[in-house]
Amino acid sequence: MENVRLIEVKEDILSDNIKLAGEVRERLRGTQTMLLNLMSSPGSGKTSLILQTVEGLAGKVRFGVIEADIDSTVDAEKVTARGIPAIQLRTGGFCHLDATMVTQGIDAMDVSELDLVIIENVGNLVCPAEFDTGAHKNIMILSVPEGDDKPLKYPLMFSICDLLLINKIDYLSLSDFDMSALRERALALNPRLTILEVSCKTGAGIEGWIDWLNGEVETFKNMEE
Amino acid sequence: MENVRLIEVKEDILSDNIKLAGEVRERLRGTQTMLLNLMSSPGSGKTSLILQTVEGLAGKVRFGVIEADIDSTVDAEKVTARGIPAIQLRTGGFCHLDATMVTQGIDAMDVSELDLVIIENVGNLVCPAEFDTGAHKNIMILSVPEGDDKPLKYPLMFSICDLLLINKIDYLSLSDFDMSALRERALALNPRLTILEVSCKTGAGIEGWIDWLNGEVETFKNMEE
Repeated sequence: MENVRLIEVKEDILSDNIKLAGEVRERLRGTQTMLLNLMSSPGSGKTSLILQTVEGLAGKVRFGVIEADIDSTVDAEKVTARGIPAIQLRTGGFCHLDATMVTQGIDAMDVSELDLVIIENVGNLVCPAEFDTGAHKNIMILSVPEGDDKPLKYPLMFSICDLLLINKIDYLSLSDFDMSALRERALALNPRLTILEVSCKTGAGIEGWIDWLNGEVETFKNMEE
Repeated sequence: MENVRLIEVKEDILSDNIKLAGEVRERLRGTQTMLLNLMSSPGSGKTSLILQTVEGLAGKVRFGVIEADIDSTVDAEKVTARGIPAIQLRTGGFCHLDATMVTQGIDAMDVSELDLVIIENVGNLVCPAEFDTGAHKNIMILSVPEGDDKPLKYPLMFSICDLLLINKIDYLSLSDFDMSALRERALALNPRLTILEVSCKTGAGIEGWIDWLNGEVETFKNMEE
């Protein structure tokens, strides 16, 4: 628990989330800090991806992490153990993050010193897709064991993301996951979706993810306001 | 789509869900129909378990299925293809089932002819745990690739279930999933939880699940009102 700052967050049902999300985006544009919202089902590999990202970005990009969980601080502890600033938001049963909660996380970090903040949203393919967190980019993980039919069942999540990472490709040998069917279903929902295949366990494909992320951070910094 | 009855359901925010759930339970007690609520993350194997259950219960237990999904009817189609009556509830973005929605499913089935109805809830480890569907038993699936830390992050789901099925044990050889740590964490939250290990793909452990289910249906039928 050392080094982990824990914040108990609550939904502010009276606030205008869309307006607040816009304010978060503008504020972080001012400090040149890109905000990335990472979403997936429970256990798809969000924390593992963040730990791989720590290795890949070390010395290149100054970044921090906002971890959200219904309970526990295990994820933030893993991140701070690698020397990366992390805030743990405990949602107390709440199923997604909104812009109010993210604001509380950002308030607790020195964002002016950071190029990138990654939010690890609550593990849930449904509710997080419905709430704008104020992120500049939305990305999702789908892991191979979850199956290639997920775009049919959770279409909104696939529709709102900029990047889809297909994780646990090391399980492909044991699985009947049809990668081309998955790509076709996801792109039918969202033709501008970038799709990358990775294994956070073996490291396969992680270089492509780091390249994408570096490129996005660079583009963000050079963007006209 | 043939044979699949699709019902668009909406949340009734004015209703008293706890009261309605009690009414569902009592009504099905009257027809001696046990109602089972099956929950898990997306892609943990709910539909695969139901398809295995079709084989295991054939000729012994008369049962039907209520499938819930945000979109698509693929699950109900798979079930009706095996000759089992299935209703598809389309929640239109809604993240869980409540007793009002389940009532609409039951109204569309001839429950007096059934010993068992299995609800396949929306794939989500968070919200479904918070809403009583009227089921007599709640069961959940956790699949090996999701990881052994899930009781720490989604404690409510583990707390409210009668049975935990650990699925995809055929992935154990590729995984660092710690079965004894998982059992310890789950039982700490819920000491009366029954835990069974299965693989819906290979069929391993399915006999134990069918035995448990047969026993519960038998006990339910013999129970004093």
